[in-house]
Amino acid sequence: MIKAGIIGSTGYAGQEIVRILLGHKDAEIKWYGSRSYIDKPYADVFQNMFKLVPDICKGEDLEALCNEVDVVFTATPQGLCSTLVSESVLERVKIIDLSADFRIKDVATYEDWYGLKHGSPQYIEEAVYGLCEINREKIKKARLVANPGCYPTCSFLSIYPLARAGLIDMRSIIIDAKSGTSGAGRGAKVANLFCEVNESIKAYGVAGHRHTPEIEEQLSLASGQKALINFTPHLVPMNRGILVTAYANLTKEVTEAELRVLYEEAYKEEQFVRFLKEGVNPETRWVEGSNYVDVNIKYDSRTNRVVMMGAMDNLVKGAAGQAVQNMNLMFGLPENEGLRMPPVFP
Amino acid sequence: MIKAGIIGSTGYAGQEIVRILLGHKDAEIKWYGSRSYIDKPYADVFQNMFKLVPDICKGEDLEALCNEVDVVFTATPQGLCSTLVSESVLERVKIIDLSADFRIKDVATYEDWYGLKHGSPQYIEEAVYGLCEINREKIKKARLVANPGCYPTCSFLSIYPLARAGLIDMRSIIIDAKSGTSGAGRGAKVANLFCEVNESIKAYGVAGHRHTPEIEEQLSLASGQKALINFTPHLVPMNRGILVTAYANLTKEVTEAELRVLYEEAYKEEQFVRFLKEGVNPETRWVEGSNYVDVNIKYDSRTNRVVMMGAMDNLVKGAAGQAVQNMNLMFGLPENEGLRMPPVFP
Amino acid sequence: MIKAGIIGSTGYAGQEIVRILLGHKDAEIKWYGSRSYIDKPYADVFQNMFKLVPDICKGEDLEALCNEVDVVFTATPQGLCSTLVSESVLERVKIIDLSADFRIKDVATYEDWYGLKHGSPQYIEEAVYGLCEINREKIKKARLVANPGCYPTCSFLSIYPLARAGLIDMRSIIIDAKSGTSGAGRGAKVANLFCEVNESIKAYGVAGHRHTPEIEEQLSLASGQKALINFTPHLVPMNRGILVTAYANLTKEVTEAELRVLYEEAYKEEQFVRFLKEGVNPETRWVEGSNYVDVNIKYDSRTNRVVMMGAMDNLVKGAAGQAVQNMNLMFGLPENEGLRMPPVFP
Amino acid sequence: MIKAGIIGSTGYAGQEIVRILLGHKDAEIKWYGSRSYIDKPYADVFQNMFKLVPDICKGEDLEALCNEVDVVFTATPQGLCSTLVSESVLERVKIIDLSADFRIKDVATYEDWYGLKHGSPQYIEEAVYGLCEINREKIKKARLVANPGCYPTCSFLSIYPLARAGLIDMRSIIIDAKSGTSGAGRGAKVANLFCEVNESIKAYGVAGHRHTPEIEEQLSLASGQKALINFTPHLVPMNRGILVTAYANLTKEVTEAELRVLYEEAYKEEQFVRFLKEGVNPETRWVEGSNYVDVNIKYDSRTNRVVMMGAMDNLVKGAAGQAVQNMNLMFGLPENEGLRMPPVFP
Repeated sequence: MIKAGIIGSTGYAGQEIVRILLGHKDAEIKWYGSRSYIDKPYADVFQNMFKLVPDICKGEDLEALCNEVDVVFTATPQGLCSTLVSESVLERVKIIDLSADFRIKDVATYEDWYGLKHGSPQYIEEAVYGLCEINREKIKKARLVANPGCYPTCSFLSIYPLARAGLIDMRSIIIDAKSGTSGAGRGAKVANLFCEVNESIKAYGVAGHRHTPEIEEQLSLASGQKALINFTPHLVPMNRGILVTAYANLTKEVTEAELRVLYEEAYKEEQFVRFLKEGVNPETRWVEGSNYVDVNIKYDSRTNRVVMMGAMDNLVKGAAGQAVQNMNLMFGLPENEGLRMPPVFP
Repeated sequence: MIKAGIIGSTGYAGQEIVRILLGHKDAEIKWYGSRSYIDKPYADVFQNMFKLVPDICKGEDLEALCNEVDVVFTATPQGLCSTLVSESVLERVKIIDLSADFRIKDVATYEDWYGLKHGSPQYIEEAVYGLCEINREKIKKARLVANPGCYPTCSFLSIYPLARAGLIDMRSIIIDAKSGTSGAGRGAKVANLFCEVNESIKAYGVAGHRHTPEIEEQLSLASGQKALINFTPHLVPMNRGILVTAYANLTKEVTEAELRVLYEEAYKEEQFVRFLKEGVNPETRWVEGSNYVDVNIKYDSRTNRVVMMGAMDNLVKGAAGQAVQNMNLMFGLPENEGLRMPPVFP
Repeated sequence: MIKAGIIGSTGYAGQEIVRILLGHKDAEIKWYGSRSYIDKPYADVFQNMFKLVPDICKGEDLEALCNEVDVVFTATPQGLCSTLVSESVLERVKIIDLSADFRIKDVATYEDWYGLKHGSPQYIEEAVYGLCEINREKIKKARLVANPGCYPTCSFLSIYPLARAGLIDMRSIIIDAKSGTSGAGRGAKVANLFCEVNESIKAYGVAGHRHTPEIEEQLSLASGQKALINFTPHLVPMNRGILVTAYANLTKEVTEAELRVLYEEAYKEEQFVRFLKEGVNPETRWVEGSNYVDVNIKYDSRTNRVVMMGAMDNLVKGAAGQAVQNMNLMFGLPENEGLRMPPVFP
Repeated sequence: MIKAGIIGSTGYAGQEIVRILLGHKDAEIKWYGSRSYIDKPYADVFQNMFKLVPDICKGEDLEALCNEVDVVFTATPQGLCSTLVSESVLERVKIIDLSADFRIKDVATYEDWYGLKHGSPQYIEEAVYGLCEINREKIKKARLVANPGCYPTCSFLSIYPLARAGLIDMRSIIIDAKSGTSGAGRGAKVANLFCEVNESIKAYGVAGHRHTPEIEEQLSLASGQKALINFTPHLVPMNRGILVTAYANLTKEVTEAELRVLYEEAYKEEQFVRFLKEGVNPETRWVEGSNYVDVNIKYDSRTNRVVMMGAMDNLVKGAAGQAVQNMNLMFGLPENEGLRMPPVFP
């Protein structure tokens, strides 16, 4: 039985790790870390866990935690994990970091976009970018996994087969993404009140969102070319779900059928990526509560562009689900253990 | 492995049975019945099931069905199941009827409130009212279970301990209930369009809703007195969830603590009924996607009334979850098999 | 041209006064008071007012304000207005207080339910309860109007004709009310975040909500008997709207037609109270953005109870609209000036 | 007093014309046309109009209608208006067509994208494209106005200043648009049920939506170059509102300030187009219920692209409001008569 600790267990992503691990055969949570609710029953913070989680929230003492668990999930603000990691820590536990601290290989890029001094740049090289479908073998051997961002996961998996095939101009990509409000976190802000979000949609972080360099880095690795993108996220009045609509110029004339073969090839062995039938657009309602990413494309012969679409649950495949998928890989378990739940609809 | 057939698998409740049984260790679905989508892939109707359910929808030929399965769920409009049941059917399969056909013991009451001629009154006596917490032992031996209505389940479990104890005036009960829109079904009606339901709340079926006699019958059985209630359901702009707020006059002076003991006593062995801490009101968000009913009470000394509250997911404990709970009891399986999923929040 | 000042103009109710007065022929806003946004452009706080309101938010200096305006709206937390009012103030301006400070005639009841010491009990007697349909003549002469609470307005108008007629047992009334989330204000609280409110419904303030004594006082005045009620508000995932479902025992046998006559009689001259056709239930979607209250009843012969229903926009008739209606009366203007906008649907 | 008739008054756009004209000083509705609700009281179809509209729905007999009114709004499916228009009609009334029949000058393009045979191509030349900000003078003299589509209005006004200035590559434009569900109409379809739309977002009509040629034609006219675009609409779980996020490559190096000047110049005299402050993104909540379009841009120096954003209410500026704005121009009234209502928030 794998013993898990969660730093930041009282955020939305942290709570989703709890939900998933409660259904995991081979893992149990031994440490519910929380800065805000220390000494309070976890089920008082998330009443859905009443009678399911009897535990009391603890602090974020990583030293103590390392002696009690095998794996630590850090579902915390940017900059915290990088200050906590050390050789002593990594010798005792595996770390799955849901923050951005170890996702970007170029430390200057990280520090520039995040406005932070990196706390332990010496581990960036070692850290594995935990996009399971791409880095499966490396993840299996990793001590430190950088769990991908929600927008990067959905964006990358929507574009990857064409980027890899060299069929799209890597400087023409435009990613227009839409996210449910749980992505904004559980902090008490006027902008995230029900009446402010409901019955509205807006773009935010236009031309400056921090997930931009992460997406560019991964697309560059996949294509072998320097990707330069426009990425625009939007806030949608729904709890969960990310939809990506991405556009790119094709580098040569193709047919939709040729493009489809590349997706089928790329994802034919992947349980959690569903390449939809021709003409069926991804919708977030069909993946809610599950670890699936639904992907499809549409070729536009008028403009010789391709529209690439992906839908997933931002809290599952975009955070907690992928973190557990990573844990499964790191501990030699079936990759889908704890993650077999079908999407919940409606 | 229990083989299950679902008549009406393409409604919301039918699809929820599918979702739950996909995670059930000891059951598999062999027949996806649907009047509207016959010969169409099930996953085309519910895209969340893509790659999970490869089956094609079949019709409602109960004779054929009975030879292929061990249990049949009928998630169909009122009046259908009662015309399908026969001795020949009941000798071969167990029936769990999600419609109202066998819930009410008095056939005249059924025919009066539903405006239908009952198709097989000879089986009403045999049918067991499938409220597992109350009729567990009878369900274990039943061939035909009448799965309770969503409002009755939530209403009854909120009131039961006080009704049983004789502490409330059974003619003073007022049940004000609120339901998410999945309770209205998947039929294409203007009244259920997004723009008609969103940003609004209304009462419906005032003083005439068909669940009224079902609730009265069960409360009468529990209390040994004739219950006569006002029941008013409301439509709420959300997908899932039922909240019941019930009021009753106390028959003598009590304290809240005395009342609480009765609930604790009634539900201490029940996994799926959570009697909340004092002062914590049930909220539908905390039970979504799960088989839990959250219950609590508040005593009002000013009026000597008690306010009894219950929250549950109308599609799970209010329909598909309870149906599977019944199936588990009927086949000698652990009562919670397939039903251990924690509530999904947010 | 009436000059108006608003203390608390950056809350939801304050902003709604702004919206309404922008369409008012005979009034203009001269003072946008705000504790939180002082010196900030009003249209930066509420971007809908961009290019419509060029003003900068000012503080809450009532002395200065009194010299610049003819009427002051206080859309502030309980307890503030009563500390600001004085003879010097009332000699210069009329006050319409949207808080609860002057609604309840019995100061001990106020202090008990609100947990506050009243700041100027000497004005309670003079203050007129600003329910225009009931106290029209008194309001015309008032210097200080206590604008009714949202729940009390909708509850009272739903019940009033039967209370006045002595046809219902004033100790049997149960009011189950449902409100959109704007009623909870614009404060940054976790409980009011989008993801916490969306897809959920809950009761709150059960047996203890502060609007209870206000409703009881008004119903007692209307009926000439001591009203003792249960009042339970609920939070609904929508922006605006209040729905009241009220229940009472009839004191004698009646027909629905007899009851309907009383409502028709009571409201036949009232522009803003719409008594609906028989069988049509009030729905909040049909009053949104307007000053209407839609009312209807259903007699239940089984229980000899009446179900009284009302729907209105909590920010309009429940706050800002009624406040402007009061202003119109106080200044001898047409009662509906600025309030003729039809409901906005969908 | 202008007498107006509405063909298709019981759709969402038709009803919005009613709402707006009820507040219009110089117009009154004399004919509520409806195919589905003929002979039924209008206020039974839209209960918000109870006591405001006493009229009964009539049919679509344009001959009869022409003798009773001065202007006819056709808020009907594509293809109807073009079969109704004739010289006899145009001699008697002015027509404002909310369908697409007369928007596109090239009849082959219309017939190709709409899959219809045009019913009266001889009037296409005469018809004026009713985008008031662009064609104001022509509209004043028109007999037949083609009211623009919702997406084209918002898209065009977001892009127009840069298209006109020749600063963007007209073959690089990508328009990613998001609409509330009222845009899908009031037809009873499963896909538009509350539970199907709520908690989800999807693209539709990818690379094939009918508004594409309309946008291209207008952008081509504005720029003097052939525009070739990708246009992708999305369905958002909200009632009203359209948000456009458009991307284009700049044809030379610029600064954001230079781009801003072009917008300020283009819209400085326009009451209904609000060019927002730098850094403030348009959000649909700030325009709801009003005739405003909020526009802003963001220059991305990394990619040398500009992101152009626009938000408006699809039923007002995107349909009924613009139709009334056109009527005002055609009849020599103040352009904003009946359209001065501020946005409703929240």
